[in-house]
Amino acid sequence: MGQAKWIWYPGDFEHYHHMLLSFRRQEYGCDYPCVWHISRPEVSARFLRSFTTEHDGVFTVVTRGKGMVRLDGALRRVNEPIEVDKGAHEIAVELFDLKTFPSLFIDSDVLITDETWQTEIYDARPVPAACEPAFSSAADDPAVFPFCYRALEPVAVESVGNGLLYDFGTEQFGPVRVSIPEGVEITLVYGESRAEALDPENAIIRETLTARDEPERPARAFRYISVLGGNAKNVGLKALLEYLPIGDKASFTAPDPELNEIWALCAHTFHLNTREFFLDGIKRDRWVWSGDAYQSFMIARYLYNDPGVTERTIVALLGKPPYRRHVNTINDYSAFLIISLWEHYEAAGRLDFVRSVWENVKALYAFIVSRLDENGYAVHRDGDWIFVDWGELDKSDPVCFEQIVLWKAHHAMAALAAAMDEPDKTYTVRADALRSRVLRDFWDEEKGAFIDSFTSGRRFVSRQTNIFALLYGFVDGERKRSVVKNALLNPSLPAITTPYFKLYELLALCEIGKIGEAQDYISAYWGGMLKAGATAAWEAFDPTQTGDAHYAMYGSPFAKSLCHAWGSGPILLLCRYVAGVTVSDGGKAFRVAPVPGRYKSFSATIPVGEGSVQIDYESFFVTVSASVPGGVFFDGKTETPLQEGETYTFRLSE
Amino acid sequence: MGQAKWIWYPGDFEHYHHMLLSFRRQEYGCDYPCVWHISRPEVSARFLRSFTTEHDGVFTVVTRGKGMVRLDGALRRVNEPIEVDKGAHEIAVELFDLKTFPSLFIDSDVLITDETWQTEIYDARPVPAACEPAFSSAADDPAVFPFCYRALEPVAVESVGNGLLYDFGTEQFGPVRVSIPEGVEITLVYGESRAEALDPENAIIRETLTARDEPERPARAFRYISVLGGNAKNVGLKALLEYLPIGDKASFTAPDPELNEIWALCAHTFHLNTREFFLDGIKRDRWVWSGDAYQSFMIARYLYNDPGVTERTIVALLGKPPYRRHVNTINDYSAFLIISLWEHYEAAGRLDFVRSVWENVKALYAFIVSRLDENGYAVHRDGDWIFVDWGELDKSDPVCFEQIVLWKAHHAMAALAAAMDEPDKTYTVRADALRSRVLRDFWDEEKGAFIDSFTSGRRFVSRQTNIFALLYGFVDGERKRSVVKNALLNPSLPAITTPYFKLYELLALCEIGKIGEAQDYISAYWGGMLKAGATAAWEAFDPTQTGDAHYAMYGSPFAKSLCHAWGSGPILLLCRYVAGVTVSDGGKAFRVAPVPGRYKSFSATIPVGEGSVQIDYESFFVTVSASVPGGVFFDGKTETPLQEGETYTFRLSE
Repeated sequence: MGQAKWIWYPGDFEHYHHMLLSFRRQEYGCDYPCVWHISRPEVSARFLRSFTTEHDGVFTVVTRGKGMVRLDGALRRVNEPIEVDKGAHEIAVELFDLKTFPSLFIDSDVLITDETWQTEIYDARPVPAACEPAFSSAADDPAVFPFCYRALEPVAVESVGNGLLYDFGTEQFGPVRVSIPEGVEITLVYGESRAEALDPENAIIRETLTARDEPERPARAFRYISVLGGNAKNVGLKALLEYLPIGDKASFTAPDPELNEIWALCAHTFHLNTREFFLDGIKRDRWVWSGDAYQSFMIARYLYNDPGVTERTIVALLGKPPYRRHVNTINDYSAFLIISLWEHYEAAGRLDFVRSVWENVKALYAFIVSRLDENGYAVHRDGDWIFVDWGELDKSDPVCFEQIVLWKAHHAMAALAAAMDEPDKTYTVRADALRSRVLRDFWDEEKGAFIDSFTSGRRFVSRQTNIFALLYGFVDGERKRSVVKNALLNPSLPAITTPYFKLYELLALCEIGKIGEAQDYISAYWGGMLKAGATAAWEAFDPTQTGDAHYAMYGSPFAKSLCHAWGSGPILLLCRYVAGVTVSDGGKAFRVAPVPGRYKSFSATIPVGEGSVQIDYESFFVTVSASVPGGVFFDGKTETPLQEGETYTFRLSE
Repeated sequence: MGQAKWIWYPGDFEHYHHMLLSFRRQEYGCDYPCVWHISRPEVSARFLRSFTTEHDGVFTVVTRGKGMVRLDGALRRVNEPIEVDKGAHEIAVELFDLKTFPSLFIDSDVLITDETWQTEIYDARPVPAACEPAFSSAADDPAVFPFCYRALEPVAVESVGNGLLYDFGTEQFGPVRVSIPEGVEITLVYGESRAEALDPENAIIRETLTARDEPERPARAFRYISVLGGNAKNVGLKALLEYLPIGDKASFTAPDPELNEIWALCAHTFHLNTREFFLDGIKRDRWVWSGDAYQSFMIARYLYNDPGVTERTIVALLGKPPYRRHVNTINDYSAFLIISLWEHYEAAGRLDFVRSVWENVKALYAFIVSRLDENGYAVHRDGDWIFVDWGELDKSDPVCFEQIVLWKAHHAMAALAAAMDEPDKTYTVRADALRSRVLRDFWDEEKGAFIDSFTSGRRFVSRQTNIFALLYGFVDGERKRSVVKNALLNPSLPAITTPYFKLYELLALCEIGKIGEAQDYISAYWGGMLKAGATAAWEAFDPTQTGDAHYAMYGSPFAKSLCHAWGSGPILLLCRYVAGVTVSDGGKAFRVAPVPGRYKSFSATIPVGEGSVQIDYESFFVTVSASVPGGVFFDGKTETPLQEGETYTFRLSE
C-alpha cells in the first residue's frame, strides 16, 4: 500500500476554499461580498475503485460527511469497520456534505484512498479523484486549509492616547487572539502603516470587541495593531503568522546591498500573497483576480516553482460553467486565464492537471467566442468590463488590446487542444483571420504603431497595446522595430502609471535588450520604496510623495495595499532577463542567456524542471552548472548544450 | 406600504430545500444519498430597488446571512437601523450565506421587501426577486420550510415482546420526540404496517438511540412505531404530524360509501405526499421524480389547485444548467418535465413563473436535442435510462415511446416559446419531421398499432406506447381507431402491471369513453386495497396476495410504499372524466362534460380558475353552477355557455 490521502471530486477543494476566501473581505466594519459569481463545491459525489486483496482484512471509510458504502453491491456504513474477504472487489462510496464538500479517507492493509480512485458527480463521467499531499491522515480535514502558524513577537509596544500600539516590525498576515476582561470594550485597529493603526475612522480593518466576542480574530494583514479603549492596557494580544511552508528555489544576489534588500522585500511580499490562491494584496479585497494572478504565475515559476498554488488559482478563477460573464467580469482576464494555463503547461507539463480543467476551459472559450462580433472581434457586451489598465486609453469598441490577447488565447487553445489529443484547426484559423483583420484595421502606417481604436477617429496610440503586440509576438521584423521606436521608446506617449502595467513595460524593455533601463528602474522604484520605509512591496509608489501621502489610494487615506503581489516583479526580471533563464517543453528544456546589464557581478540559482541551474557572473565571465539535462547556454551569439552536472565557464559577447 | 416579505434569488429556496430533502433518505440504518446530480443554491446575490419616500425614515435590512448595504452608493451595515431622508433613493444589498442561501427582509414605513425588487447573481441579468407568502415577518427563516405541526395521539399502545408498539390508526408523517432515561438503549422501528414495526431487521427505517442522541427524530412515515429494548416502557414517545395547510377545493361524493372512502383514502395519501415538493411516496426514497410528479401535477390541479408545490417541484426537478444527464437520469422524464410546465401554463397561466424558469427550460431542451441522432430520434446515450415503465417492452434503440413524448415536448416548447414572445418555428418543424418519420418507421400496418422498435425485428406492440400515442393526440381518425382496437382493447397484449402506468391506461380508457371500465377498476383495485386494510393508497396492489405478502416489493419484505402519490389517481379520473371538468387557456376557460358511467348519482365541486364549478347528477339530470365565467357545458351532443353564478339543469344524452 502507498500513502493514503483524503480524496474528493476535482475542483471541490478549490471551489470551497475560494468561496470562503471570497467572502472574507471587510471594510470599515462592514462585510464586503465578492462582486462576481462564485461557484459552490458539489454537495454529493460517488467514489469508485476495483481492488484485489491477497488476504482477508478490515477497513473504515472515514468521512466528515454522510453517506453509504456499497461493497460488491451490499450496503455498508461509513465510519465503521468493514470486513472484506481476500479476492477481487468493487467498492462505491456515495457521499454528501451539506456544509463543505464530500471527501473520504481509507488507510488499511487492503485498500487506501488516493488518486487511483475514480469519482463522478452523478453525471456518468468518472474522472480521477483529487487530493492534496497535506491531507494524509484520518485526523485531517480538507475543509480546513493546511496553513502553518508561528507566534509573532512585537518589536515594540507603545502607549498611545487611549491604548497600546503593537509594532510587529514588518508586514505580516495572520490571526490575532485577544483576551478581553469582562466589562471592557476595545477597538482593534489593523494598520499596514503606523498612521493607519492610529486612525480608527479611516483604517480599512477595525472592529469593536468585548469579552462576548470570539477571542480568535480572523487572519488579516498588519504590521501595526492598536488596541484602543478605556482599559486597553489590561487586554492581552497574541498574533500569529499564517503561512504556507513553501521554500524558495531561486536566489539572486549581487554585491549591491540595496538590490539584495529589494529581492528580500519582493520574496517576503510574494510569500505573504501565496495562500489558498494568489491574492492581489493581503489587506484590502483579498479576492482572486486573473490579471494579478497572471503576473504571480510568472513570478512563482521562478521563486519557488511549486505548481500547487498556481493550479488552485486557475481552478478557482475558472469556477464552473455555465459562464455568463467574464472572469472577474473582465474580458481581458478571461483571455489571460486561458493563456495562463497554456504558459503553465509549457513551463511545467502537468498534463493531468490540464485534463482536469479542460472541459471548463473549453466552456470558457466557447463563452468568449459566443460574444465576438461578426468580424471575430472581442467587443463590449452587457456586463463586460474592458479593463486593460487604469491609464489613458481609447476604449471605443473594438479595442486593439482585447484583440491581441484574444489572438494569443486562440493560439493557447490550439496548443492545449493538441496536448489533449483534440487537435482542431478552428483555433488557428480564428487566430490568423483575427491577426489579418487587426493589421488592416488597427495598424497606423503614419504613426508606425497600433492605435487603440479605429472607430473613434482619435487614432490614439497607447503604450499598453503596443507592449502586448511586442510581448506576445503579434508583430516581427519591420513592424516590430517600428513598434519599439514609435510606441515603447516614444517619450511623447502617455507614461504607464500603474505598477501592474509597469511590469509588462519592463518585460518589454528587457525583451528588446534594454536590461540596463530595467535595472535602473528597479533601483529607483523599489529602492525608493525601501527608503520610504516599505517592509513589503507596495501596490503603487510615487517618489514625489512624502509621509502618509504614500498610503492613500482610491480616494481614501489608507486604501493603498502595502503588500501587493505585483510589487514582486523584480524577481521575474532578474531571473528571466539578468540571469536569463527560460523554461519550455513542460519543464524538460531550458535556456540560459544571461545579460548582466549594469551589474558587474551576480550569483543566481534558478529552478528548472525538477532541478536548478546555478549562474555566477563576474566581469564578462559566467560560470554555469545545471542539475538536470535539457539546457543550452547562449552567450549572445552562439548556443552551447549544457550537460547535467557539468560546470561551464563562458565569456559573454560584449 | 404593502405586505413585506422575505426575498431571495429565484430558485434558491427550492434548490436549498430540494438539497436537504434529497439527502434525507435512510435505509436499514444507512444514509442513502440521492443518485442524481443535485444543484446547490447560490452563495451570494445582489438585491436592487429604487424607491422614493415622502418623509424621513428608518429601516433595517434583516438577514441571517452577511453582507452590506449600499444606500445611494454609501456603505451601510445589515441588521442595524439605517436612516434615510425623504426623496428618491437607490439601494443595493449585497449578501452571502455560506450555509443556506442569501435572503433579506425589510419592513418599514419607507421601504419594504417584496417581488418588486430586482436581484442578480453577479451575472448582469437582474430578475424579479422571489418570495413565499409564508415568510412575512422578521422572525421567519426561509431556510426552515414552513410546515405546520399537530400532536398525534396513538389509538393503541400495546406491549410486545421486549417493548411497546404504538399504533397511530392511519398513515402519518412527522417528527417523533423520545425521552430516553440515562443508561437505556432502545431501537425505534417505524412501520407503515404492524408487521414492519415489529421486524427491526427488515424494517426500512429503524435506529438505535440512547439519552445522548438528539431526542427530536427526523420526520418520517409511519402508522406504527415500536420502541424495543430492556427499559422501553420507561421511554416517552410523542409524535407530530408535519403537514402543509392546503385546503381541498375539490370534492366528489356518491351514495356509495366505499367510493367516498376511496376518495378520502386518495386525498389523505395525496396530502401526505404534498410537501416541499411532490414526493413519490413518503417512506422510502422521498426523492423528487419527474414521472411521478407529472401525475401529481394532474391530480393537484383538481384536488386543491394550488400552484405552490407544483412550481416548487418544477424548479427542483429542473435544477441548474449545465445539463449533463437527463432529469432523474431518465430520458422520458426530461420530456415529461417540459410537458408538465406547458400543461401547468395551460391550466394556470402563471406567465411570470414560466418566465422565471424559461432559461433553464431552454437549456434542458437544448440538452435533449444535443443527444438526438441524425434522424432526430431520441436514442440511448452514455448515462441515459430509457425507462418508460417496468413492464415488458422492446427497448431496442430507438424506442417509439421516447419519440412520442419527445414529439409532445417539441410542441410544448413551441407553445411556451410563443408565450415568452420568442416564437420559433424550429420546434414545430422538428415535431412534424419526427412524426412523419415515426409513422414511417414504427407504424405496423399489419398489427394496426405502433411497435416499440423497428430495429430489433421483434415488431413488439406494447400497451404503453400506444396509450401515449392516444393520450397525446399523436394519431387520429382511422389510425386512432386502430390503436384502440389493436392495442388498448387487445387482450392478447401483456397487461400493464404498474400502478404508475395503470393510471395512464385508465385515462386512455376514459378518453375513449369507457368510463364504466375505469369505475369498475377503481372499485376493484382501490376497494380491494381498503379491504386489505390500507389507510393510504399503496404503491402497488395485487388482489391475489394475502397478509404480509402485500408489503413486499423490490425483493424486500417491507420495501413497498404504503402511501404513494400515484395511488391517488381516482381523484383525477373522477374529476376529469366523471364530473368531466377540464380547464384551458391558463384557467380562464373550462368545459363541463360529465359522464356518470355506472354511477346513478354523484355530487362534485371542482376548482376552475379562481373559483369552482358545482355539479350534481341524479338519473340523467345534471345541475351545474359556476362561480366564475368562461365555462361551457357539454351534454354529449351540444355545448351551452355557462353564465357565472347561474344554475343550470341539463339532461344528458344517453
